[in-house]
Amino acid sequence: MPKQVDHQERREAIAHALWRVVDQHGWTRATLREVAREAGVSLGQLQHYFASRSAMLTFAMEFVADRTADRVTRGLATLDQPPHPKDVLRVVLAEMLPLHPDARASSRMSAAYVLEALHDPALRRQAGLGLHEGRATVERLVREAIANGQIAPDRDPEIETDLLLALTGFTPLLELGVVEPRAALAAVDQYLDRLFAASP
Amino acid sequence: MPKQVDHQERREAIAHALWRVVDQHGWTRATLREVAREAGVSLGQLQHYFASRSAMLTFAMEFVADRTADRVTRGLATLDQPPHPKDVLRVVLAEMLPLHPDARASSRMSAAYVLEALHDPALRRQAGLGLHEGRATVERLVREAIANGQIAPDRDPEIETDLLLALTGFTPLLELGVVEPRAALAAVDQYLDRLFAASP
Repeated sequence: MPKQVDHQERREAIAHALWRVVDQHGWTRATLREVAREAGVSLGQLQHYFASRSAMLTFAMEFVADRTADRVTRGLATLDQPPHPKDVLRVVLAEMLPLHPDARASSRMSAAYVLEALHDPALRRQAGLGLHEGRATVERLVREAIANGQIAPDRDPEIETDLLLALTGFTPLLELGVVEPRAALAAVDQYLDRLFAASP
Repeated sequence: MPKQVDHQERREAIAHALWRVVDQHGWTRATLREVAREAGVSLGQLQHYFASRSAMLTFAMEFVADRTADRVTRGLATLDQPPHPKDVLRVVLAEMLPLHPDARASSRMSAAYVLEALHDPALRRQAGLGLHEGRATVERLVREAIANGQIAPDRDPEIETDLLLALTGFTPLLELGVVEPRAALAAVDQYLDRLFAASP
């Protein structure tokens, strides 16, 4: 089905262009017109692939989520098999923070997407679904680690999951240079070491 | 100096208008034109008070910071005096999260401001200064609590400060309904209880 592949490739090229615009110039510049210019297509061509800014953003966020998942998968492949859940969480958290260029671009897209979603019910639904899914994955890891005695049994799996996800709060601190990447990673490690400390 | 007071009042009224535009319609709608419309002034009048979008945002963020500080001060006044540092941190963290309409508006302004600051060196400097100041306040509280034996002496004050600030990562989870306000507060309490647990 060469036509469909072509269509998908073109959409990905446009998502890449949107990504570059957001990363380099910021969210407010990410209009259909500006993205068309960056992608080297006409506004009409862009609109053939994405009927609205919202449709373009939704596709771009799926694309960002896929790329983040790929980075996590590659990170997990470097661990001893089967990996320790602490190391899995470390890889997941590290890829969610803007610690290197690719993760930084993803992180900026996500932050902009969340802000836009607050005022767009369709984006909001999609963003909520994505986050719920991510949360469920982390909660599964936490529950398994509790069941296996790697996290103390008196820890509440839901609260621990929420606190782990809240560590993405390092994002603005890293972006504005208030916390250095090394310090953020040290804090995440310290946090995970305490979570996985021997049970009482 | 009635003229200066007037000037300041008009600037605050405009900051309020910006705040409403961001809260209700999102950041991409917060142009000088749209804010002038919301504030009921002409674009020319608005430009008399703020020469650029960036100048308007900088003022609006100072205004947001002042309002957040006021809410924290009111929250601290309800505590037993002198307040326990754990309760102080709880008030500070609770006011930084979008748990009620005023804090939500502040939180949305800050998130939008961070994104804008990434591509605007002047805003970036100012945003960084504000965050550095906030970080210093929290670190002082942590160091005092360690000195007073309220936090175990083996805790690293810098890492603990960074982890406390990272708890603002609940913001997108709250905004998108992935975590309920009650659950976020329970997690913050759990976190603070462990931080202030008896030393080993």
